[in-house]
Amino acid sequence: MNYRMVFSMIGRLLLLEAVLLLLPAACSVLYGESSVWALLASAGVALAVGGLLVLILRPKNKTIYAKEGFVIAALSWIFLSAVGALPFVFSGAIPNFVDAFFETVSGFTTTGASILTTLGAHGEALAMSHGILFWRSFTHWVGGMGVLVLMMALVPTGSGRTIHVMRAEAPGPIVGKLVPRLRDTAKILYLIYFGLTVIQVICLLVAGMPLFDSLVHTFGTAGTGGFGIYSTSIGEYNAACQWIITVFMWLFGVNFNVYYLLLIRAFRPALSNRELWLYGGIMLASVAAITANVWTQMPYTTFEETVRHSAFQVSSIMTTTGYATTDFNLWPMFSKCVLVLLMFIGACAGSTGGGLKVSRVMLVGKAVGRELKRLVHPRSVGVIRLEGKRVEESVVQSATAYIVLYFLLFGGAFLLLCLEPAFDLESNFTAVAACINNIGPGLGAVGPTGSYADYGTLSKVVLSFAMLLGRLEIYPLVLALLPGTWTKE
Amino acid sequence: MNYRMVFSMIGRLLLLEAVLLLLPAACSVLYGESSVWALLASAGVALAVGGLLVLILRPKNKTIYAKEGFVIAALSWIFLSAVGALPFVFSGAIPNFVDAFFETVSGFTTTGASILTTLGAHGEALAMSHGILFWRSFTHWVGGMGVLVLMMALVPTGSGRTIHVMRAEAPGPIVGKLVPRLRDTAKILYLIYFGLTVIQVICLLVAGMPLFDSLVHTFGTAGTGGFGIYSTSIGEYNAACQWIITVFMWLFGVNFNVYYLLLIRAFRPALSNRELWLYGGIMLASVAAITANVWTQMPYTTFEETVRHSAFQVSSIMTTTGYATTDFNLWPMFSKCVLVLLMFIGACAGSTGGGLKVSRVMLVGKAVGRELKRLVHPRSVGVIRLEGKRVEESVVQSATAYIVLYFLLFGGAFLLLCLEPAFDLESNFTAVAACINNIGPGLGAVGPTGSYADYGTLSKVVLSFAMLLGRLEIYPLVLALLPGTWTKE
Repeated sequence: MNYRMVFSMIGRLLLLEAVLLLLPAACSVLYGESSVWALLASAGVALAVGGLLVLILRPKNKTIYAKEGFVIAALSWIFLSAVGALPFVFSGAIPNFVDAFFETVSGFTTTGASILTTLGAHGEALAMSHGILFWRSFTHWVGGMGVLVLMMALVPTGSGRTIHVMRAEAPGPIVGKLVPRLRDTAKILYLIYFGLTVIQVICLLVAGMPLFDSLVHTFGTAGTGGFGIYSTSIGEYNAACQWIITVFMWLFGVNFNVYYLLLIRAFRPALSNRELWLYGGIMLASVAAITANVWTQMPYTTFEETVRHSAFQVSSIMTTTGYATTDFNLWPMFSKCVLVLLMFIGACAGSTGGGLKVSRVMLVGKAVGRELKRLVHPRSVGVIRLEGKRVEESVVQSATAYIVLYFLLFGGAFLLLCLEPAFDLESNFTAVAACINNIGPGLGAVGPTGSYADYGTLSKVVLSFAMLLGRLEIYPLVLALLPGTWTKE
Repeated sequence: MNYRMVFSMIGRLLLLEAVLLLLPAACSVLYGESSVWALLASAGVALAVGGLLVLILRPKNKTIYAKEGFVIAALSWIFLSAVGALPFVFSGAIPNFVDAFFETVSGFTTTGASILTTLGAHGEALAMSHGILFWRSFTHWVGGMGVLVLMMALVPTGSGRTIHVMRAEAPGPIVGKLVPRLRDTAKILYLIYFGLTVIQVICLLVAGMPLFDSLVHTFGTAGTGGFGIYSTSIGEYNAACQWIITVFMWLFGVNFNVYYLLLIRAFRPALSNRELWLYGGIMLASVAAITANVWTQMPYTTFEETVRHSAFQVSSIMTTTGYATTDFNLWPMFSKCVLVLLMFIGACAGSTGGGLKVSRVMLVGKAVGRELKRLVHPRSVGVIRLEGKRVEESVVQSATAYIVLYFLLFGGAFLLLCLEPAFDLESNFTAVAACINNIGPGLGAVGPTGSYADYGTLSKVVLSFAMLLGRLEIYPLVLALLPGTWTKE
């Protein structure tokens, strides 16, 4: 294990975080809020710790192997969240550090699960200062496309093998480079991300949402996060805003390779992306099923409203964003059950969304199909193809092993959560599902109008790790916890 | 597809069922009950249909390939249950055919889920005649070790390739023969099964349980089924009876190969069975965890009673039997959650228990471990060993594909069940878990004091198929439903 390289990378990341913290600090200054000091103090801590790590640990050997890549990803995200929690503590917005850590992990992992119980209602004052709320939502934007990817796009790392770091952080079963140079790939991804973000802000402004609200909600949409600023979430705004966010949640759940292909005018390969069609198909089918179910059993005033709420909630849950326009906890059982199943599928690989990812579900579906074929024709040679290309057997094994490990960890987290006597099975089950899949709200006590505040410290730590497991796709965190990974060689 | 051979095998099976129906009929005669006519009429139907199939379809070609094996297993169990439901309908005990079919599938698959709401309480008359109750429990005994295995032990089939049929019906990821001849293997298995059954009946009689009660409860234990005759299940009997059933449930959840090895005095290989140790270890750990949880939060009068109820419920759920001595639906959340997780692990391969099976969980656990190792050392060659023997890659792929397919079907059944507006998530989730894992009682509305009576017809059909999917380990039923399986060649 190349300790020096690992911790020097973490140092650089904290320096980047110090810079990022200046943005909400500027927002605080604009609104004349005292929380600017909390933000600046946190930036100071990030600068001091990061600077020390970078200065003291000058790695002689800059090689990064797969092992280092996973450990860098795992530790980076933990350090980033621990320092990112400081503004909440310093400003007094969330005095308890475990609560603040939960909220920050929830932010960076783009989960959107909150321990806040007192978000402002319509017309009331906001629950926190603008600067702190800006930071809270901005963590979604930073975490969505990957903070290490951002660092690679901005700072040269000096190592030629940062693909291992990117692979450890990027979502999905297969990670490819768009262009030969990794740094250029990272830049292109962030340019697309930034471009879509700007377009969404403009659309929301045109639809009548105030500038501050447009910014924080776009951060939440772009990262598929889901932190809002009102207790009614997006239900606070008009129908046009709701439709805009529905569409953009969907767009940020698409594999960003598709946008790159569209940009270089490779329309045919872009539109032949099977994952994209399956993602859209599942989404439409779910909207139809829920609209039919809700419209027959507890309809909203107009049919448009029923379709709008159905489409919004489906887009929100499947992309693992977690915004709400209505309390879907009150919907009929069937609709809630469709949402729970969508929680597990998740968005496309290479998007900012979480969950198992549509392409991984496709891959293991094909592995199951091959197994069925082999049972009938024992001598058949099963080669799995995805979009015409042969998928290596190791990728298939990796995807199936991933799903098994996922359910094992899910069961473990669920068991630990059940040590809490106060919650029912529905709340605990969907709390774990909503955290490990980076969604945010679940059902029952953690439904769209509830919060995670009443869980105990152990449960909050467990759920924080579940969020990190989901965002980093399990392996980095599990490998970082195995003693074998830490041996010198 | 060799249609003639498939349906001629089903015909033989129905003839066997006609013979099996004479046993409860004899019981009815002993008690002087009118239900004897219902049982004899059902035997007549089985005789007529089975006889016709055997006489008309004399297969010229007796070859059975893997495909035929799966289809025979799937259709046999459906036919067997449809005919086995007739005594309930004819006697008026369960007039509705769908209900009777549910109850019979639940019997043969050794699930023990019941639609009966009016089992007798202490001291009251029984809910049904002795003959019908005998048949209800006897289906557990017949289904436990496999009805096709029983047929093979009794009747020569004329085909040398019945291993495909046995493989389709036998539980677990790897099916081996104990001795070179398959028919001898089947006979040995049934002799061990019969021997253990007799020992349990004697133990229960000595502990003071009446003969009829001892017989039906031993059938339920041996098959890991769980149909009782009182609304309080085994809570009706003294502590000695409860401990005896705890131990025998555990014994019937052990791989029968272990007993064969013990019988031929191969003690070392018998006791080096890793699955056995893991099975025992999980059981003990769960008993300890639940005892601690229940004793601190809602203790029974004595510590012995707390341990007894914990051990009984753990043994009952993990072996997928489903008997109860107490209403564990009232236990603290943590204990209920341990039980829910045990539902999925299940008993050992090659036992009469259901669930995923301990050895399959071990196998995919090793596949996950290999994946983790490969991530750190990309060039490592991962060979998976089980008890010193190299496991073929196709077996590993099959086990992981199995678990994925299992969760997909689980999700589908759960979705269909959620169309019922009346039940909550906890009831629906555990209803599917209790049926697909062949356990019986779940939590909430389908808890140990509840029943499946209030589910609608669609849900009962879905749950019946879930039970069959669990008992036949998915593949036979899924393959029988694929149109590709039915092509002529």
